[in-house]
Amino acid sequence: MNMSSSPQPQAPSPGIIFDTLQAYQRSVALKAGIDLDLFTAIAEGSHSLSAIAARIKASEKGTRVLCDYLTMMGFLQKQGSDYDLTTDSAAFLDRRSPAYLGTMANFLMSPHVAGLLENITDVIRHGGALPSDDGALAPEHPMWVEFARSMAAMMHMPAELLAEEFAGAKPIKVMDISAGHGLFGIAFAKHNAHARIVGVDWANVLEVAKENAKIAGVAERYSTIPGSAFDVDFGSGYDIVLIPNFLHHFDAATNEKLLRKVHAALSPGGIVLAPEFIPNEDRISPQRDATFSMQMLGTPAGDAYTFAELEKMFGNAGFARSELRELTPFPQRFAVAYK
Amino acid sequence: MNMSSSPQPQAPSPGIIFDTLQAYQRSVALKAGIDLDLFTAIAEGSHSLSAIAARIKASEKGTRVLCDYLTMMGFLQKQGSDYDLTTDSAAFLDRRSPAYLGTMANFLMSPHVAGLLENITDVIRHGGALPSDDGALAPEHPMWVEFARSMAAMMHMPAELLAEEFAGAKPIKVMDISAGHGLFGIAFAKHNAHARIVGVDWANVLEVAKENAKIAGVAERYSTIPGSAFDVDFGSGYDIVLIPNFLHHFDAATNEKLLRKVHAALSPGGIVLAPEFIPNEDRISPQRDATFSMQMLGTPAGDAYTFAELEKMFGNAGFARSELRELTPFPQRFAVAYK
Repeated sequence: MNMSSSPQPQAPSPGIIFDTLQAYQRSVALKAGIDLDLFTAIAEGSHSLSAIAARIKASEKGTRVLCDYLTMMGFLQKQGSDYDLTTDSAAFLDRRSPAYLGTMANFLMSPHVAGLLENITDVIRHGGALPSDDGALAPEHPMWVEFARSMAAMMHMPAELLAEEFAGAKPIKVMDISAGHGLFGIAFAKHNAHARIVGVDWANVLEVAKENAKIAGVAERYSTIPGSAFDVDFGSGYDIVLIPNFLHHFDAATNEKLLRKVHAALSPGGIVLAPEFIPNEDRISPQRDATFSMQMLGTPAGDAYTFAELEKMFGNAGFARSELRELTPFPQRFAVAYK
Repeated sequence: MNMSSSPQPQAPSPGIIFDTLQAYQRSVALKAGIDLDLFTAIAEGSHSLSAIAARIKASEKGTRVLCDYLTMMGFLQKQGSDYDLTTDSAAFLDRRSPAYLGTMANFLMSPHVAGLLENITDVIRHGGALPSDDGALAPEHPMWVEFARSMAAMMHMPAELLAEEFAGAKPIKVMDISAGHGLFGIAFAKHNAHARIVGVDWANVLEVAKENAKIAGVAERYSTIPGSAFDVDFGSGYDIVLIPNFLHHFDAATNEKLLRKVHAALSPGGIVLAPEFIPNEDRISPQRDATFSMQMLGTPAGDAYTFAELEKMFGNAGFARSELRELTPFPQRFAVAYK
């Protein structure tokens, strides 16, 4: 194999191996900073070690080690012996910030999610979770309530971006499949006063979506269909069907079955909008989309699909054409499929 | 606080938070690659997905996800749909390589080590492991046999570098405290045919050191003192006392007690050589040394000491002076203390 296109002139170094085998410490330390509300403490004016330690009720030694570690990971700045937030941690890790994302740690590092890779060698051998491990897809699994509560803040921006472009001003009927927190559908209701939204998810998860619809003041235009998207009656006449981060849980045949049902529920000229992790055809870029396939490998049949794969699913389900789009500046993509 | 010295002109991005909360996947994936012997399979000529999957006896899907992930993490190269090793993985992760380091994963990600940070918020609050968690310092703890077997390969280079500079050619008596795999003392015996080595460690660990001394052909000049370095009788007349990666387990007072005992066992003109993780006074550089304090926070009283702290311990123990030195090209440092 010709390696000339990617030369590595330097001597081999074991550093990357040592660092990667300890990379789990990064996740653990950031979650600890969030759990101890360290970032809020600093935002509120504690900058010296003794002040921060007193504020988060921790030992000075533990606080020092954590603050130094988080400085090296890019979440704090250190000047002399004082610490301050970075632009990113001020925006997203100060609990008082409207864009607070600290709750993400509860979901992304929950046993439900992190535990998916616990038996990773077996999972790789088998090509997915072992048959006994398909719990997350069980009806009313509490993991999805946790998801709806923990990931809502992260989904505010992409929901707004999609609604800005697609909500329009005419009366429309929008279905939000796997609504979760409900933010995607709710954003359409907020942007278009004539939009009626139908959220589909497990009944326990829809309670979270309904709470959020109430808070957003759109509850009277937000109805729900509780149950599995594969089993419930969607009704018909939808202009837009949102399928956010759902297709990655299933194999292609299962997705095609769902998409045929969605196709039938759409009005002529209707569209599907599916925010997803969509790696390029090389499957190694963009890194955030492409690495998601590792997370999905821990499920029974999930994957991060390339656009060519999604396009084929939409086509087999009867859609006329589909497109890959960016959600810039949010680091995710979405597919649009036209009936 | 004036932040002008480290401007962050770009808009805040949640990417670093998402990536860090998933960084644990990097450790898990690399360990899986090592456990499945993926790197050896590729080194032996399997480059296509189907060939690699067949060779490591895994599903093609699991193999594809793992190979793509390891490509993104810098451990493989992908050209079209074929994979090859990088310079680093060829040198250190091909099981047939004399510099194979895959065994490190067994120690660095063992429950003994990774488990230290399991209750990290409590550990930070308390400033170290809770009293019930001091198992690693218990006599004959099996963790240190695992260490001796798993980390030997990594320690070959620093041991050689130290022996090259300090072993000399005259008859010398060398003590290796917390000998572990024994490689530091053994390197001195190999470089100097008139060196006699005394390894100190738990009896179960010294079995590994004695095996390695035999393999290196220096067994007849390698004797041992089993037991705790704090309790055993060292004897006297040592020219060099090696204390590799040991002082970071204890608080300063405990280290000073040990160093006084070492000082007494040294001949006039004798020296201590202590390879260690030694952060700069800012405690945030070099990163590999400075991040080690997080690992040590999980122990009852350990830390990654700055050179100023080590210098004070040596001084209080009676040493005339001490120096900080680099182990280049190995990414660690060492302290030299002169009687």
